[in-house]
Amino acid sequence: MDLKEAYLALRKKKPLIHHMTNLVVTNLTANFTLALGALPVMAYAKEEVEEIVDKADVLLLNIGTITREQLDSMLVAAKHAKATDKKIVLDPVGCGASALRKEAARDIIAVGVDVIKGNFAEICTIAGKSAEMRGVESGEGNVDVAIEIAESLAKDLSCTIAITGREDVVSNGVGTAKIVGGSEMLKHITGSGCMATTAIACFLAVEEPFYAAMHGLELMKRCSEGLNYGGPASFQQAFFDRVFSFLDTGVEP
Amino acid sequence: MDLKEAYLALRKKKPLIHHMTNLVVTNLTANFTLALGALPVMAYAKEEVEEIVDKADVLLLNIGTITREQLDSMLVAAKHAKATDKKIVLDPVGCGASALRKEAARDIIAVGVDVIKGNFAEICTIAGKSAEMRGVESGEGNVDVAIEIAESLAKDLSCTIAITGREDVVSNGVGTAKIVGGSEMLKHITGSGCMATTAIACFLAVEEPFYAAMHGLELMKRCSEGLNYGGPASFQQAFFDRVFSFLDTGVEP
Amino acid sequence: MDLKEAYLALRKKKPLIHHMTNLVVTNLTANFTLALGALPVMAYAKEEVEEIVDKADVLLLNIGTITREQLDSMLVAAKHAKATDKKIVLDPVGCGASALRKEAARDIIAVGVDVIKGNFAEICTIAGKSAEMRGVESGEGNVDVAIEIAESLAKDLSCTIAITGREDVVSNGVGTAKIVGGSEMLKHITGSGCMATTAIACFLAVEEPFYAAMHGLELMKRCSEGLNYGGPASFQQAFFDRVFSFLDTGVEP
Repeated sequence: MDLKEAYLALRKKKPLIHHMTNLVVTNLTANFTLALGALPVMAYAKEEVEEIVDKADVLLLNIGTITREQLDSMLVAAKHAKATDKKIVLDPVGCGASALRKEAARDIIAVGVDVIKGNFAEICTIAGKSAEMRGVESGEGNVDVAIEIAESLAKDLSCTIAITGREDVVSNGVGTAKIVGGSEMLKHITGSGCMATTAIACFLAVEEPFYAAMHGLELMKRCSEGLNYGGPASFQQAFFDRVFSFLDTGVEP
Repeated sequence: MDLKEAYLALRKKKPLIHHMTNLVVTNLTANFTLALGALPVMAYAKEEVEEIVDKADVLLLNIGTITREQLDSMLVAAKHAKATDKKIVLDPVGCGASALRKEAARDIIAVGVDVIKGNFAEICTIAGKSAEMRGVESGEGNVDVAIEIAESLAKDLSCTIAITGREDVVSNGVGTAKIVGGSEMLKHITGSGCMATTAIACFLAVEEPFYAAMHGLELMKRCSEGLNYGGPASFQQAFFDRVFSFLDTGVEP
Repeated sequence: MDLKEAYLALRKKKPLIHHMTNLVVTNLTANFTLALGALPVMAYAKEEVEEIVDKADVLLLNIGTITREQLDSMLVAAKHAKATDKKIVLDPVGCGASALRKEAARDIIAVGVDVIKGNFAEICTIAGKSAEMRGVESGEGNVDVAIEIAESLAKDLSCTIAITGREDVVSNGVGTAKIVGGSEMLKHITGSGCMATTAIACFLAVEEPFYAAMHGLELMKRCSEGLNYGGPASFQQAFFDRVFSFLDTGVEP
């Protein structure tokens, strides 16, 4: 499937995406899921996450404002998703910023996930490399290094690795894709990385991890191009409207 | 009072609505309360909810992302509201999705609430009926069954029951109303059901539960009709702007 | 520096602002930080707040939906910020509304903060005066009393006090400024006070507390004037777009 076909398959299936995400993007990613034609469910309580995983098609874990209690819940959910063959996508937000986040990413990965999506620094942290030493931020301008790390980490962890940047990179250790384009304005709204993870989660309900990651990132780039706006707030609105109906806009994927 | 009079009474009184709501709609329903001319206060800590209830006119409980700790707080707030004659509205979001949510809805209802507002599946769960067995989603296309359940449950629980769907139903066991119209776009933004509950909470400060529920749902439908938009994000903006000034727009309730 | 110079200095420095804020404005103030050209990080877990403070330029504490657990985290963060010479701004949201909030404000102030920003009632609570007895709401129409309280409290606490209202007041006990103008619409969107605190936090990264508070409040007023909108939602969008590019709009600070 290409992006257009995957988007149509997604809208036809209307999968339920169980989000355990951060406090900054709860509303945003719920709306983004709806804009994509899928259904969001946000549920965090340790007591209920297994039941919610049972009803959902995909589990999304985002450690952006994690606490120890939420990490416990996420691990319960992840183990149950794994045991019941549900796909899992991890967004290790800021995982280099604290020991708690490093631990969270490590423990969730140990359960087994299908896709890890992060910026250059986050993926470097997971790969045990120092992003700072390379003098880069989010891997921009250094796409060859990003490809190398994505391929190597994908092999090590037997999953798909997606690294966002000016050029996005996706690898499952066998194949590797580079996604170009998009808008600089995505940097000026909070949660654009988290929305990319939501897009990947949605596509995971209809295709294999490598293609889901590729199409999720491609959708972000295609839908953010050529919009009319006067600043970040009107950009975000135009972006959401475009995501909802991007096959009708004449923008071919 | 008709909707127009209730809306004016609400804007004149500017009631304070204590929300204990889910993480997805915290900002959204605070803004929705303001758009309606009322004042929101969001407060969750067990230590303070009684003091907040004392200052508020109405208590809104929404179990959308509930945890056991939050349920404890909600029960403290509900009992205090009941003891001090404050009105309570419950939104049992997804109460069929987990044992925790079923328990939350049951325990809050046991304290005594004035209005319960849910979709068809949620109200069926509370009524002990299986929504799935009826092969419906949110009661759409099955308004006669919704009326039957609303009337019966309203009598059983001695409160007002509001069931949202393509046609909304409100009953207090004596009278029953059906509200038609609205926009399909409300399905494509997250929290439209939660906003309806906020509208009901606001009207509860100026009129009896049956009318508050009817006018809350009527407001959602009237304000979502005939808007100009290019997708869900611009629809939401137009909807909020309309709610803020709908008596000035030439749209008569 | 005047507002224009401070805004340019801020956009050049791109400081990282560690927010520990309320559930209503998490997304809003993250986006507001980005619109100002700074970078937000929202982090709450007791286990990680010291590490986040180390990476941040300024710590913002907002007690809007505080729980005891979050207060503990905030105190850990505040003490570490103090010990490492990071600036702290406190927004004592609704601190008169409950014993927990009074305690939270008192305990955080005891650690030592650089700026306290509140409305008239909140600052009166901190000053141990009864706002209700004065028959005012948020100090509107009573700017002389606000000035008196700001000056006296600034001396007592050796910090900068900012009181918002129709006319804002800022004092560090030595100098006092009054900021006029702005838009009535800011009252109709939730979190406008919290955004003002974010603006102050951003300016704290590039100038002294008195000027940071003054410029933060001035920015809110200047950017909310003369906008085109049809209601609160389109006002908020226009306001954010303006904040992002207000030096380009012909509106001179």
